[in-house]
Amino acid sequence: MSSQPASQLDAADPLARFRSRFVAADDPSVVAYLDGNSLGRPLTVTGERLAAFVAGEWGRGLIRSWDDAWMAEPVTVGDRLAEVALGAAPGQVIVADSTTVLLYKLIMAGVGARPGRDEVVIDVANFPTDRFIVDGIAADRGLSVRYLTPSHAAGVRPADVAAAIGDRTALVVLSHVAYRSGFLADMAAITRAAHEAGALILWDLCHSAGVLPVELDACDVDLAAGCTYKYLNGGPGSPAFCYVATRLQEELRQPVWGWMGASDPFAMAAEYRPATGIRKFISGTPPVLAMQPLKDMLELITEAGLAAVRRKSVALTEHAIALADEVLAPLGAVLASPRDADQRGSHVTVDHPRFAEVTAALWKSGVIPDFRPPDGIRIGLSPLSTSFAELERGIEAIARELRDQ
Amino acid sequence: MSSQPASQLDAADPLARFRSRFVAADDPSVVAYLDGNSLGRPLTVTGERLAAFVAGEWGRGLIRSWDDAWMAEPVTVGDRLAEVALGAAPGQVIVADSTTVLLYKLIMAGVGARPGRDEVVIDVANFPTDRFIVDGIAADRGLSVRYLTPSHAAGVRPADVAAAIGDRTALVVLSHVAYRSGFLADMAAITRAAHEAGALILWDLCHSAGVLPVELDACDVDLAAGCTYKYLNGGPGSPAFCYVATRLQEELRQPVWGWMGASDPFAMAAEYRPATGIRKFISGTPPVLAMQPLKDMLELITEAGLAAVRRKSVALTEHAIALADEVLAPLGAVLASPRDADQRGSHVTVDHPRFAEVTAALWKSGVIPDFRPPDGIRIGLSPLSTSFAELERGIEAIARELRDQ
Repeated sequence: MSSQPASQLDAADPLARFRSRFVAADDPSVVAYLDGNSLGRPLTVTGERLAAFVAGEWGRGLIRSWDDAWMAEPVTVGDRLAEVALGAAPGQVIVADSTTVLLYKLIMAGVGARPGRDEVVIDVANFPTDRFIVDGIAADRGLSVRYLTPSHAAGVRPADVAAAIGDRTALVVLSHVAYRSGFLADMAAITRAAHEAGALILWDLCHSAGVLPVELDACDVDLAAGCTYKYLNGGPGSPAFCYVATRLQEELRQPVWGWMGASDPFAMAAEYRPATGIRKFISGTPPVLAMQPLKDMLELITEAGLAAVRRKSVALTEHAIALADEVLAPLGAVLASPRDADQRGSHVTVDHPRFAEVTAALWKSGVIPDFRPPDGIRIGLSPLSTSFAELERGIEAIARELRDQ
Repeated sequence: MSSQPASQLDAADPLARFRSRFVAADDPSVVAYLDGNSLGRPLTVTGERLAAFVAGEWGRGLIRSWDDAWMAEPVTVGDRLAEVALGAAPGQVIVADSTTVLLYKLIMAGVGARPGRDEVVIDVANFPTDRFIVDGIAADRGLSVRYLTPSHAAGVRPADVAAAIGDRTALVVLSHVAYRSGFLADMAAITRAAHEAGALILWDLCHSAGVLPVELDACDVDLAAGCTYKYLNGGPGSPAFCYVATRLQEELRQPVWGWMGASDPFAMAAEYRPATGIRKFISGTPPVLAMQPLKDMLELITEAGLAAVRRKSVALTEHAIALADEVLAPLGAVLASPRDADQRGSHVTVDHPRFAEVTAALWKSGVIPDFRPPDGIRIGLSPLSTSFAELERGIEAIARELRDQ
C-alpha cells in the first residue's frame, strides 16, 4: 500500500497555509520537527504578544491588571479552551499549576468523594506522572492501586475497565490518548463503565487536547486534566488545565487550600472558605504571564476548525504508517500504534532495537522525533505546523540512519 | 522631624540610575507606583528576553532545549537566586510551582518528618495562603494548629515563639517580613528557639527575597518558600521558589510525586524513585518560559548589590514614615509598621478608616499603593524602581484624597 507523494498531499492540504504562522517553520536547521506532541512550536504572534504584554498589561497596567483581567483569566482562558477543544460548557475548566499538581488535586478530591472505597484503578500505559501521583497518594492514605490489563497491546478497551473495577473502586485514572502508543480510548463507553460500578473517572488529556475533538460534557466525564504545551503550543512548562464537572464541584474537596481558591481572596480572612464553582480548584497566584501564548493557539485552532485539524491529523498519521510500512518495516522496525485511525491520536510510534542511538543521531542532523523507552521512536504530528513533506523527510532520515549505522 | 526633600534624596541616591531600566518608569500615566511588593515592574530587557526566547530556545531549539538548558533551570536559576538573595549554598533551592503549592509540599514534608508530634504553630499575621494551607493539612490529617500571640502589635518576637512551642510542635510556619505590617522577624533567634523545642521551621520569604539580605544557611533554617513576582520582578504569577536545607533533603518526603522529581524522568519507570537532592521537590514539568524574567532581576540586583538595595530600602521606608508623620498623621492616619528600621522590611502600612475609598480614588489617578483590610494603605518600596520623588507624590496624593473626600 504505497502512499500518495507528500508533495501532492501538501498541495491538497487545506490547512497547509497555517504552517507559516509558526516560528522558524522553514528554518533549514530544522529538517523535520516531529515532536510537536512534546513541545508545540511557537506561533510568531506569541513573541509579539509577550513583548506587548510586558510593555502594556504588566508594565503600564501594573497591579491594576489583576482587577482588569488577570483575576478572571484562569477561568476565562479555561472557558475558551473548554469551548474550542474540550466540549465543555463554561465554568468547568481552569488553567493553573502543572499537570502533575492538578492530577494530585483531582485524585485527592476524587478518592475523597467515595468514602468506603479504597482502590484506584489505573493503566500501566498511563504516563509516569499519573502513575506516580496515584502511587504516592495510595502509599500515604492506605489505598490500593489496581493496574488493569489491556486486552489490546496498544490500549484500554471498555471491557478491560469493566472487568477491573468493582465496588471497592473509588476512581479510575486513564489517558485519553496513550503517550507511547497513541491509542485513543473510547471515552464515552469507558466513562459509562466506571459510572456503572459507582466509580468516578479522571481522564488525562495531554495527548488529545487541541488535536482531536474531546467531548467531556457529552461523555459525562467527572474529572480531566492535561497540559497546554503539546498541541496547544503554550511553551515550555506552560500551565496545565483541569476540568471538574459542574455537578461535582460543590461536593469535591481539593487539598491545596490557597488564597486564590478562597471565596474572597482579598478579604485576607481568618478562615478558608472555598470559592464557589470551578475557582475553588485554584490554589496559588495564577500563572498569568505563562498562560498568554496558549491564547494564540486557541485562536488558530478556531480559525482552522478542530474538525479540520483532526482530518489532517488522521491523514498525517496514515501517511506516517504507510511510509513506516514501506521504508522502516523492511529494516526491522515494528509499528507500535493502532492501524485503525479511529483508535489513534496524532502520533505514531515505531519500535526498533537501535532507535535510542538512531534518535541521538537524528537530533544532531535536525530531524527531531522523540524517543520513548525501551526502543520506540515517537513521531508526533501537530497538524497546523507539520507538513507531509516534513514527515517524509523525517521518516527517510530514520531509514537512512538505520541503514548507515 | 521633617525629612529631607525628595529631590535631594534622589540626587544623592547611588541607585537612582537603575530606575530607567524598568518599563514605563517615567510614564506620566503612572504618577506613583507604590505596589512593587505586590507586583514588581518589568525590566525593559524582559520583553526583549521573552521575544528572543520564543524565537530562539523555544522556536529553533525546540525540544532539544530541554536537554541543552531547561531541565537544569529549576536548579540553576534556584542556585543563582540562592546566591544573590537567599544566603544559601547551591543545591538547596528550586524554582517551581506557586508559593501555595510549594508551601503545601514543604508543610506536608515537615510534619511528616516529626512523627509523634501533632501540632503546627503559626502566626495570625501570616499571609492567608500560609494559614489556609496549614488549616487544610491539619483538617485532613488530624493535626492541631496553634496560633501564637505576638507580644508586639507588628510582629513575632523570639520569646513569643519560645512560649508557644513545645514537645507536640512538629513545625513552625512564619513570615520573615509580615505582609501587612512589614515587621521583620529575627530569623536567627526564632529558628534557634524552634530547634531547641525539637521543631522544624518554615519561613515565608515573599516579602523579603530580593530586597534585604536573607541568610538561610547562616540561620540554620530548615525550610523556606517565597514568590518571585514581588521584589524579584518575575511577572504576574511567576513561579515560586523553595529552600530545603541539604541536611534534610534525604529524610523529607514530599507528597506530590511527579515525573520531573523522579531520579530519571525519561526512564518512564514503573515505580517512582525520588531524585537525589533538591530535585525531588520538583513535581511537574518546570515552568521554563515563566522563569525567564526572574533572571533579569537577579542580574540587576547583582549589579546594584543587595546591601545597597537594603540601604535604599531603609532610606525609602524612613522617608515614608517621616512623610506619613508630617502629612497623614494630622489627618487621622496611624502608622501600622515598626519605626525601628531593623525590624522593618520594605513596605510601610498606614491605617485610616477611609482608606478603602481613598485607594480606589488613588488608583484612578495613577497613584498605586495597595489596600489591606481592614483599613490599611500599604506603601511598597521597591528600591531599584522607586524614586523618593515618586514616594512623595504618592503620599501627597493620599493626603489630598483624605482632605478632599
